[in-house]
Amino acid sequence: MNGSGALYLALDFGGTKLTAATRFAGGSGWAAHARQVSPAGGRMADDWGLMVALADEVLAGRKAAGIGVSFGGPADFQRGIVLLSHHVPGWEQMPLAARLTARYAAPTLIDNDANAAALGEQRYGAGSAREHLLFVTVSTGVGGGWVLNGQPWRGSSGVAGEIGHMVVDPDGPRCLCGKNGCVERLASGPYMAADAVAALVAAPGAGPLLWEKSAADLTRIDGRLVAACAAAGDPLARRLLLRGARALGVGLGNAANLVDPGLILLGGGVTKAGPLWWDTVRATVRDIILPEVQVAIEPAALGDDAPLWGAAVLAAAAADGGRRV
Amino acid sequence: MNGSGALYLALDFGGTKLTAATRFAGGSGWAAHARQVSPAGGRMADDWGLMVALADEVLAGRKAAGIGVSFGGPADFQRGIVLLSHHVPGWEQMPLAARLTARYAAPTLIDNDANAAALGEQRYGAGSAREHLLFVTVSTGVGGGWVLNGQPWRGSSGVAGEIGHMVVDPDGPRCLCGKNGCVERLASGPYMAADAVAALVAAPGAGPLLWEKSAADLTRIDGRLVAACAAAGDPLARRLLLRGARALGVGLGNAANLVDPGLILLGGGVTKAGPLWWDTVRATVRDIILPEVQVAIEPAALGDDAPLWGAAVLAAAAADGGRRV
Repeated sequence: MNGSGALYLALDFGGTKLTAATRFAGGSGWAAHARQVSPAGGRMADDWGLMVALADEVLAGRKAAGIGVSFGGPADFQRGIVLLSHHVPGWEQMPLAARLTARYAAPTLIDNDANAAALGEQRYGAGSAREHLLFVTVSTGVGGGWVLNGQPWRGSSGVAGEIGHMVVDPDGPRCLCGKNGCVERLASGPYMAADAVAALVAAPGAGPLLWEKSAADLTRIDGRLVAACAAAGDPLARRLLLRGARALGVGLGNAANLVDPGLILLGGGVTKAGPLWWDTVRATVRDIILPEVQVAIEPAALGDDAPLWGAAVLAAAAADGGRRV
Repeated sequence: MNGSGALYLALDFGGTKLTAATRFAGGSGWAAHARQVSPAGGRMADDWGLMVALADEVLAGRKAAGIGVSFGGPADFQRGIVLLSHHVPGWEQMPLAARLTARYAAPTLIDNDANAAALGEQRYGAGSAREHLLFVTVSTGVGGGWVLNGQPWRGSSGVAGEIGHMVVDPDGPRCLCGKNGCVERLASGPYMAADAVAALVAAPGAGPLLWEKSAADLTRIDGRLVAACAAAGDPLARRLLLRGARALGVGLGNAANLVDPGLILLGGGVTKAGPLWWDTVRATVRDIILPEVQVAIEPAALGDDAPLWGAAVLAAAAADGGRRV
């Protein structure tokens, strides 16, 4: 702990948990860190109340020079407004930055979790030697965030990074977004699990290990079980995991050809699927990129705290007037 | 003409023609402009000799404060080196910037034609009100260049913008690059023509108008004829043109989701195919982009001179020390 610098407050409103932490300018690591599960079936007011309690706890009566927020859903960085939450009702058009500034009398910057995680990894994680990177989370969904020239790249409408709904197979299965063969439709955990369930319903023998490990209760199949059974040789699980890895590889290769970031970091639960998955992703990217494009595909380093580290960067930028992070 | 400002020399080494022009700082339009066809079967020394003659002609004995070059092939902006030409042998690893600086005693910046065209359009063409854009040329190939935050975005390896080899249909036909279903394989003029020829060889009745207009000499079929016959209702030509427009639309939509540039400008011969093609490209982009992504798809404005205008921007930047264009 370092009491000499300014104190920054970092908040992470995740899909299933809430985290608050403080950090001193020039210090290493967190000064304080507190996390709580977001209550199932809760509303915006519940999350707000819990987060304020966590923030009060980590601040312990001190004043923050700046506040940074990672929000697990669409957020407008420029206006400081949460557009909506896919998990919790009541967040629509919430002026979260103004609300935090009013409560804590400190300037506040907010961003979505993929952008925040990209920034966190670029400053404190696996991308800390690089000026440019694409961070992609492969989890219940597939999302991405850019850092270009050391700064978050949010795009003209503030929504850059949507690699999850890149179409990589127009003849592929239908995604909830309405398109066919999106990266997320093929590579995310819940969709792999859903396709496994559908295949087992049609033919229980197609995935004997999946069938056995789920004890024939198909509701127990998730992306993690698909990955584990694929590693153990189950043919159905292996086919679905590799199809997902290839779809992601096509998406990442296309992104590398298009933007040439040099480094792509992958985080999220599905990236824990093991070497079979990683080897397939990397081999597919190599097939897709042009000979002159160089790109490393590496695991992200900060795990679940990547968005929180990004929020800390935003907090420092807010304290500094918010012009550049 | 305006004699008060610095004089900039802009050079465009195109695939089939060479252009030199001068421009005064603060002036509008070109002070002088000269163009010559690049000799078929020529080598690098031929093009160099012709370009020097054109440059001497437009300079008319005056000294350039800076030189900018658009090169129709891979070029390394940072090192000022042409990597190779796909059209003319002898350009491999040519230090073109140093060579021009030595001859004309003026600082020189070079870039590839897609990046130069993007920059030209952003400063002087259809993108002049915008900070960000993607320029895509759809011609004998499909290439792209970015301007982000008012500056060319060249990527980590200097090769960003390769939308032509984005895979949009893994089950599509094989491209020379080795992949299946690249945008260029489906949307470029020569590939559309080659597919038309193959289909007519297999079944001359598949495209009666193509057959008639080429007078059964299939070597006369090019992208322009495919577009013209598609507009006139030929079923084969129409199928190929729309397949190309859809492939391009998927690529552009994916690019918009990923980078969110707000504006995509399209230039090159295929964009003259008419409303059927434009409507299909735009409708496909609308299908692909997420609801929150906004992007306009517009024709480029500067035509064949877009790279030359970009070269003029580079010349001014070279004169100014080359830090920012």
